[in-house]
Amino acid sequence: MVSYVVYGRGSFNQLDEILAPRRVGKSPMIFLLDHFFQNKPLADRIPLGPHDKIIFADVSYEPKTKQVDALATQLKQEFGTVSGIIGIGGGSVMDLAKAVSLMMNNPGSSADYQGWDLVKYPGVYKAGIPTLSGTGAEVSRTTVLTGPTRKLGMNSDFTPFDQIVLDPELTINAPANQRFYTGMDCYIHCIESLTGTFLNEFSKSYGEKALNLCQEVFMGEGDWGPEHDDKLMMASYAGGMSIAYSQVGVAHAVSYGLGYLLGTKHGVGNCIVFDKLEEYYPEGVHDFKKMVDKNKIEIPQHITRGLSDEQFDTMINVSLGMKPLWENALGADWERKMTREKLRALFEQL
Amino acid sequence: MVSYVVYGRGSFNQLDEILAPRRVGKSPMIFLLDHFFQNKPLADRIPLGPHDKIIFADVSYEPKTKQVDALATQLKQEFGTVSGIIGIGGGSVMDLAKAVSLMMNNPGSSADYQGWDLVKYPGVYKAGIPTLSGTGAEVSRTTVLTGPTRKLGMNSDFTPFDQIVLDPELTINAPANQRFYTGMDCYIHCIESLTGTFLNEFSKSYGEKALNLCQEVFMGEGDWGPEHDDKLMMASYAGGMSIAYSQVGVAHAVSYGLGYLLGTKHGVGNCIVFDKLEEYYPEGVHDFKKMVDKNKIEIPQHITRGLSDEQFDTMINVSLGMKPLWENALGADWERKMTREKLRALFEQL
Repeated sequence: MVSYVVYGRGSFNQLDEILAPRRVGKSPMIFLLDHFFQNKPLADRIPLGPHDKIIFADVSYEPKTKQVDALATQLKQEFGTVSGIIGIGGGSVMDLAKAVSLMMNNPGSSADYQGWDLVKYPGVYKAGIPTLSGTGAEVSRTTVLTGPTRKLGMNSDFTPFDQIVLDPELTINAPANQRFYTGMDCYIHCIESLTGTFLNEFSKSYGEKALNLCQEVFMGEGDWGPEHDDKLMMASYAGGMSIAYSQVGVAHAVSYGLGYLLGTKHGVGNCIVFDKLEEYYPEGVHDFKKMVDKNKIEIPQHITRGLSDEQFDTMINVSLGMKPLWENALGADWERKMTREKLRALFEQL
Repeated sequence: MVSYVVYGRGSFNQLDEILAPRRVGKSPMIFLLDHFFQNKPLADRIPLGPHDKIIFADVSYEPKTKQVDALATQLKQEFGTVSGIIGIGGGSVMDLAKAVSLMMNNPGSSADYQGWDLVKYPGVYKAGIPTLSGTGAEVSRTTVLTGPTRKLGMNSDFTPFDQIVLDPELTINAPANQRFYTGMDCYIHCIESLTGTFLNEFSKSYGEKALNLCQEVFMGEGDWGPEHDDKLMMASYAGGMSIAYSQVGVAHAVSYGLGYLLGTKHGVGNCIVFDKLEEYYPEGVHDFKKMVDKNKIEIPQHITRGLSDEQFDTMINVSLGMKPLWENALGADWERKMTREKLRALFEQL
């Protein structure tokens, strides 16, 4: 787990103090900043030391192993080594920061480490500072990467951040639809894990808390305010913690198919799928639709219209490959329940 | 925070595997086991290596700095150094294990480090395995010790365990009254912090979850079963996490007075006090009384009967010394609200 956690409005202002004891000689701190913040005030608030560097990370697409390898190579060539990698942004930036930190100290390509407990050495010091709430990437022991052969995380004990700074003020300017999609990443995860067959009290406690917070934030009365940012940041944290002993379900399995073929991003992809899953999660989808209405969000429709049979087959293959997700959702005999025909019909609705 | 957390029924069986990578040469693992387990099967389930040692810890009284120093000195004399200290028991044993681990690597007496961030060096590897749920000692960054001049913790970034093993099966044989008093440690903490003036969303989220779990466990229908042990262990964990950004209140401030003069243990002391605090925590005390009835627990009464004026003064002085607790409970002008006379009247009711 993450060893150092700071939570509080304005805690970003403590960053200089937090990083000071982690600086090693003249080796720089590298700030990976979401390109969303280019020409925004946050970039100027970063406590840059004389040797430090800000790199704007283009996360128009989710992180790729090639992108991770290129960044690590660039930093090694420029600096030899670095004091630390500080990821500031949404889930993609945080995953990128974790992966680059690991690749500063591990040989080869990040693609070699996609899987479970393959990473050999601890990375350089790494800190995560979320500016969007919901992914749980700030506390997870993985970093989801698209590689040459698969989309899979570097899951290891070395993967979690050493430090996270949870400052809800940083999420204040998030675009409403992005904030919603990312918040729903947390909500949908909770619904899938709490109704699933894999769960223990640890993950249940965290999942229930995250779910309640999401409901308060997105279904409660009144306009969006600072207390919503506070709660959603805690929902994300609790949701991320609940992943430890739980598993996701149908929405994630189907959404992976969309992501693989169409590049649909995780948050919005989950929303597109979950919107059509009344059969599997009746209560959860009922509330989801209420939240969509209340927050005046438009969920993209008909994104699979006009795809070829071959393309549908690709998505179906990717999706059915996520066996543990299906088993969690539908039980050991899931293959009888989720046939290719049934899944095709579901993809056609999206 | 604790870097490695395992939660699950039967996870104690993984202890050998968990400790293996932490063994340094022939240096032993030291298992500090609650004396409650003398001649009980748990002692035989400890994965003892050829050089390891079990020490039964007498926790009839809460840990003292003298006891910590004596244990650390004994271990240094016998082994030079050790691979780790594994505390297995209730809050006192866990605090003892944390403190002994620190004193293996820090010079002088543990009394020198009572306070905030005074500990100079990390301790030896330390793991905590609770067999009673409620104290939160498994996750806290302190270890409460009674020293020559004060009862105060060694609060530091080096204090938390490196690893905790949360196995609810281990709590199955706890005596019902002990289980209740320790569970109420968590409940009372939550009431005090959630109604206090110091709190942020991090601590609120954890505190609310811990409170809900305590209510489910102690107020729910039906007899005590494994799911109660599961939930109470998570309540303790969440309650411990909520301490980060919150503060306790009247019950703790008054209970410290009892503990100082009469040696009343923390859990039962809090119950004795909280039972009389309708004025400050009306809802919390109402539910507390229900839980006492439902669980058929007898709260000791009249423990201050016959004390001298001087003794009452001692308790009042200790209690009023806990300024942040009073301020959290009663606000900045607490001194006008809680006079010596009023506090004396409260102590006389106990």
